[in-house]
Amino acid sequence: MPASSSTAERPIGVFDSGIGGLTVVSALRRELPGENILYLGDTARVPYGGKSRRTIERYSEEIAALLVGEGAKMVVVACNTASALALARLREVLSVPVEGVIEPGVEAALAATVTGHIAVLGTKATIGSGAYADALRAARPGIRVTSRACPLLVPLVEEGLFEDEVTDAVLERYLGAIRAGDADTLVLGCTHYPLLTEALARAAGPAITLVDSAANCARTVARRLDQLGLRAPSGHPGTLDLSFTDPPDNFLQVVRLALGLEAGAARVRAARPLV
Amino acid sequence: MPASSSTAERPIGVFDSGIGGLTVVSALRRELPGENILYLGDTARVPYGGKSRRTIERYSEEIAALLVGEGAKMVVVACNTASALALARLREVLSVPVEGVIEPGVEAALAATVTGHIAVLGTKATIGSGAYADALRAARPGIRVTSRACPLLVPLVEEGLFEDEVTDAVLERYLGAIRAGDADTLVLGCTHYPLLTEALARAAGPAITLVDSAANCARTVARRLDQLGLRAPSGHPGTLDLSFTDPPDNFLQVVRLALGLEAGAARVRAARPLV
Repeated sequence: MPASSSTAERPIGVFDSGIGGLTVVSALRRELPGENILYLGDTARVPYGGKSRRTIERYSEEIAALLVGEGAKMVVVACNTASALALARLREVLSVPVEGVIEPGVEAALAATVTGHIAVLGTKATIGSGAYADALRAARPGIRVTSRACPLLVPLVEEGLFEDEVTDAVLERYLGAIRAGDADTLVLGCTHYPLLTEALARAAGPAITLVDSAANCARTVARRLDQLGLRAPSGHPGTLDLSFTDPPDNFLQVVRLALGLEAGAARVRAARPLV
Repeated sequence: MPASSSTAERPIGVFDSGIGGLTVVSALRRELPGENILYLGDTARVPYGGKSRRTIERYSEEIAALLVGEGAKMVVVACNTASALALARLREVLSVPVEGVIEPGVEAALAATVTGHIAVLGTKATIGSGAYADALRAARPGIRVTSRACPLLVPLVEEGLFEDEVTDAVLERYLGAIRAGDADTLVLGCTHYPLLTEALARAAGPAITLVDSAANCARTVARRLDQLGLRAPSGHPGTLDLSFTDPPDNFLQVVRLALGLEAGAARVRAARPLV
C-alpha cells in the first residue's frame, strides 16, 4: 500500500498553548520512538486556560491548520483546555484524525477508581467547560466527580517551583478537601501538572491514585495509528522538531531538562499568519 | 478655537493587556472626572508580561489603533509591559499623543528617594527590558536601581488573593532582600500591583515608600491635556466605557468593586479584526 505507507511516514503534529504540552511529547517519544513529531506551542497567546470557548476554538484551529499544512498525518491536542473546548470543532474542520488528552484520561480514571469518586484538577476554562465531568458521566452513569479549577498551578510550574513551600501551600488549598473525601483517583487535567507529580502525590495523600493524561494520551495515539495503518515504518529513530509562535523563555530549558527531551534548537515562527 | 474644543470633547483612549489597567482608569477618574474614557483590555491575548518585544509591539499597535479609530484624542498605555516595550513605537505610528506609566513613575520615584537607591518590581518583560533602570539612570546618573521580576504577582492578584498567606509568602521572597538593603523607594511597575498595596507595604517594611505608577500617570495625563489644550470642557461628568477582546472573567467584578469603578456593562469586541 504505497499511498498509505507514504502517509505513515509523515509526522505527528502536536500543539499546545505553550510549553506544558511537552509532557505529552515526552510520553509520545517513549511510546512511539520511531515517529517524527512536529510540536507547535502558541507562546504568543499563552495561556488559553482563562479564555473563552470562541477564542480557544479560533486559536486551536489556526495552530492545528498550520501543522496539517506541514504534512501532519494526525493532530494531537496536547493541551487540556484546547481538548476540552475545541476538540469537537477540530474534528469537524481538519482533514486528518485528531486526538486529545481528555478521552484517554477519562478512560484511565474509570479503570483506576474503586470508590467510584474521581477528582479532576484543571484550568478555569477546562473545569468550567465540564468536559471531564460530562465524559466521565457519559461513560459511567452514577460516577461521582469533584472538579477543582487550579489557576495558580500553571504560573507556579512556569516558575519552575516544582518543589517549593509556596507550591505546597497552594496545593494544600486545592487538595485539602479532596483528600478528606472519598475520591480515590485524581486526574491531572492540565499538561503542566505532571511536572508537579511528586508535590501533587504528597498533597493528595497515599489513598489517591494520580492519572496523568500525557501517558494515557500517548497510548491512545499509538492504538489509533495502528488502527488506521498510520504507524511510521520501523527501523529509524523519530525526530523531534520544536517551534513556537513567540520566543520561549527559560521555562523551555527547565522543561526539556526535567523531561530529558532531546531536540534541535527551537524555531520561532512568525505569529502574524497565525492570527 | 472650535477645532481644538471639538478635539477636547473626544475621549481619552486607555488600553492594557487585560484588566489590571483599571487601576489607571480609577486614578484618571479621580484626577479628571470630566473626561470620557474608552478602555480596551486585550483579554484575548493577556498577559503580555512574558512575551517578546516584537509581539508586545504588534499587539499594542493593534489595540491602540482601534482606540484612535474610535476618536481617542490621546492614548494612555495603562500597562507597564506595553509602556516598557512599545511606547517608542506607538509614538512613531500614532497620530495622537501617547502617555505611558513608566515616565511618571520614574519622576515620582526620583522625587521620593533620599538614599538614591530605588527598587523596581515588574513583569519579566518589563524588568528584562531595562526600561525603568535606563530611564532612572538617564534622569539622574549615579542613581542605584535594584530590579526584580515578580511573575507570580499577576496570577495572585487575578485570583483576588489581595490579603492571603500565599501572597505574603511570595512577597517575602521577592522583597526580603530589598527590605534588607538601603533602597528607600519601591516602584510598583505593573498596573496590577496597586491592588496589593497593603500587602506590599507590609512586606517592604516602614522604611520604604511605595510609588504607584497609576496615580502618577493620571497626574501626567492631566498636565499634558492642559499643555495641549485638550482638556474636556468643564460642566459635565465624564463617562467610562469598558471593552475587552475576550469576555472578562470574575476578576473584572473583583477589580471594579476594589476600585469603586462605576461603568455600564462591559462590551466584548470581536477579536478577529485586531489580530
